Amino acid sequence: MNTAAQSTDQAVDSVDAVMNRLGQAARRAATTMAAASTAAKNQALLALGAQIRASAEALKVANAQDVNAAIANGLAEPMVDRLRLTDKVIATMAESCEQVAALPDPVGEITNVRRRPTGISVGQMRVPIGVFGMIYESRPNVTIEAASLAIKSGNGCVLRGGSEAIHSNLALWKLVQAALVEAGLPSDAVQLVPTTDRAAVGRLIAMPEFVDVIIPRGGKGLIERISNEARVPVIKHLDGNCHTYVDEAVDLALAVKVTDNAKTQKYSPCNATESLLVHVAQASAFLPLIGKVFADKGVEMRCDARAKAILADVPGAKVVDATEQDWFEEYLAPVIAVKVVDSLDEAIAHINRYGSHHTDSILTTNHPNGMRFIREVDSASVMINASTRFADGFEYGLGAEIGISTDKFHARGPVGLEGLTSMKFVVLGQGEVRT
Amino acid sequence: MNTAAQSTDQAVDSVDAVMNRLGQAARRAATTMAAASTAAKNQALLALGAQIRASAEALKVANAQDVNAAIANGLAEPMVDRLRLTDKVIATMAESCEQVAALPDPVGEITNVRRRPTGISVGQMRVPIGVFGMIYESRPNVTIEAASLAIKSGNGCVLRGGSEAIHSNLALWKLVQAALVEAGLPSDAVQLVPTTDRAAVGRLIAMPEFVDVIIPRGGKGLIERISNEARVPVIKHLDGNCHTYVDEAVDLALAVKVTDNAKTQKYSPCNATESLLVHVAQASAFLPLIGKVFADKGVEMRCDARAKAILADVPGAKVVDATEQDWFEEYLAPVIAVKVVDSLDEAIAHINRYGSHHTDSILTTNHPNGMRFIREVDSASVMINASTRFADGFEYGLGAEIGISTDKFHARGPVGLEGLTSMKFVVLGQGEVRT
Repeated sequence: MNTAAQSTDQAVDSVDAVMNRLGQAARRAATTMAAASTAAKNQALLALGAQIRASAEALKVANAQDVNAAIANGLAEPMVDRLRLTDKVIATMAESCEQVAALPDPVGEITNVRRRPTGISVGQMRVPIGVFGMIYESRPNVTIEAASLAIKSGNGCVLRGGSEAIHSNLALWKLVQAALVEAGLPSDAVQLVPTTDRAAVGRLIAMPEFVDVIIPRGGKGLIERISNEARVPVIKHLDGNCHTYVDEAVDLALAVKVTDNAKTQKYSPCNATESLLVHVAQASAFLPLIGKVFADKGVEMRCDARAKAILADVPGAKVVDATEQDWFEEYLAPVIAVKVVDSLDEAIAHINRYGSHHTDSILTTNHPNGMRFIREVDSASVMINASTRFADGFEYGLGAEIGISTDKFHARGPVGLEGLTSMKFVVLGQGEVRT
Repeated sequence: MNTAAQSTDQAVDSVDAVMNRLGQAARRAATTMAAASTAAKNQALLALGAQIRASAEALKVANAQDVNAAIANGLAEPMVDRLRLTDKVIATMAESCEQVAALPDPVGEITNVRRRPTGISVGQMRVPIGVFGMIYESRPNVTIEAASLAIKSGNGCVLRGGSEAIHSNLALWKLVQAALVEAGLPSDAVQLVPTTDRAAVGRLIAMPEFVDVIIPRGGKGLIERISNEARVPVIKHLDGNCHTYVDEAVDLALAVKVTDNAKTQKYSPCNATESLLVHVAQASAFLPLIGKVFADKGVEMRCDARAKAILADVPGAKVVDATEQDWFEEYLAPVIAVKVVDSLDEAIAHINRYGSHHTDSILTTNHPNGMRFIREVDSASVMINASTRFADGFEYGLGAEIGISTDKFHARGPVGLEGLTSMKFVVLGQGEVRT
């Protein structure tokens, strides 16, 4: 007992030592990255893209170790798939580095400069946050996404990928380090946690002296655990229980097209619609139309009594009674909750109560109703006459996305380069003093 | 033992019950506040100003209870002073409500709207954060500052003032409630914790379901405790170890005037300069000049060897050897740390290592040096040729200030109305779908 406890203590100590070393190195390098020129950062990104292309075979060899181990360990096929560095994934990683290089550099931009009565000019300068920690699961391409956004935004980062992808991640990380060196930037700026020991995560989220913010990507369990235990801010992405609300006055063809897209274009993304609310005045006209679409695509409808009364008549429709829990659910599957509401007020109240503050859309021809909806629905993205599936950093023109925040603090919705920066005040004077 | 433990449990339970009720009421009212018109919010603010003026005598009666108790309890005179609602303090509170009414309403503003290739328009709308919790010490006027900023920014709030100001705060809070009702707004939007039980603070900072962010104002101990224990984000204001750096090329008269102001205009504010760095090329010219000013004003100088060698010759100068700890110190007193540095690089490195990321200023005639300083010094406010004393919400034109953040996350530097809001994405479409 005593010996086992001691050796555990030693193992924890050594993980802590490793994490401290990584954190310290990232923190030191971040100072240089914050002052790096746009040219140097872009050079590193282009070098990284080129190295990924040139190292495709070596990457596949390293990746094969992970894939074979995953198969041997009986990992489910979809998980193994997410792990694979195919030629297509490798080409996409290289392209994404070049895309990030082409984005405008957010760092150093000075805005909102105004002259004050005292004579000083006050403005705000965008600067890197410092060091971010990223915790993610099997996909090794996230290593390159995170590294390239760190480089462009002038931040340091400490990356902790899934243990099942460790060989792939180490191989990718070596390329990142080489690219930084090639551009004259500190290779320490991007750190990869080399151990698969879970204690490393515990330390990563609790060292404010080295890491300023944690960005977790993964399942709800992982993110909740990290949010509860972190000693630094977390850019959280919890579930996406997204709503489409069909208003009293609506273009029915538009409503069918957009609702169909929002639910069925892809079932797994967090921005797919999970709940459909329909104003009572449109229920008997709209529900049979969308019900037929859902019946044809095999989408199960979990309905309140009024929706069920209408949808039960649609040939082939899978109609089920909704439970209270259904209004909270993120199905990520061919299932949708359906409810008839009496008013816009009821729709807004329902969304704010049961939704996850991710993305919600109103389909309406009524301008005041649309404006009330986007003002009063308390979600990261609110939409009028558009598919919830648009809630995405690329679709929004952010150029790249490190995550989608369902928090209200700092960054809300898709988080791009700007979300990895903060604004400091700058004061330009000519010797002014305070009186 | 058993009985004592039980009654403690019951007391804690009942504080929890009180806090839950306040939190729930604030959360519910915040929804209405978020959608309130600018006119209604301004009406409430003007009504509050008028009520404060009309209730001056009643406020002084309530305040006398607190002041008498404080004197009876042997509170130090400066603390008793901060507690007093004098005619002047009452008039200033009323005016501040009118000033906040005159500020532009940040809520609902839509910016950055851009058309995307898919046809959708994407922009960002400024919305309230929700409910903030504010924890502060003796000054009862903070109750009105916080309430008026909550009203204007469309947030709910839960206020927890110092126990020594409880009668004054309750009297002020009644006026806030009446003003909200007069404007047709929910009186629950502004809550005041009615108990002086310290367990209330523990609950306030740990109920993310009701309170979105905590803003503490007070001593370092209070803020550190809250930061460590809070389960929601905290807008932290830790110390202000502000630096003035006199560069290699400088207008000596300007440097003396600004350094003098930064240190001696007032000793107690967090934006007063605590450390003076001087480039070696200016040390023998500049230090005797500022040394004479400090000697005349009785400011003690804690010096490194090179600064001491020069300053020791200034008649009447109080010159002391600096210890390592002096470079970290926030004196809030007629004391300044003085160090000669060999380069801009050394100055920046020193500030980033020993400073508190609050406010730092370079005095220089060299443009590239000035730009490097404001880019590379990692502080909430960075200045060129201006007194650090300008770091203040009113001086920056924010109109009002709820605190100064030394964090990098969300809000940095003086926090005004905008710091109490967040940006959500809005998408305006005409039936677009994702392909």
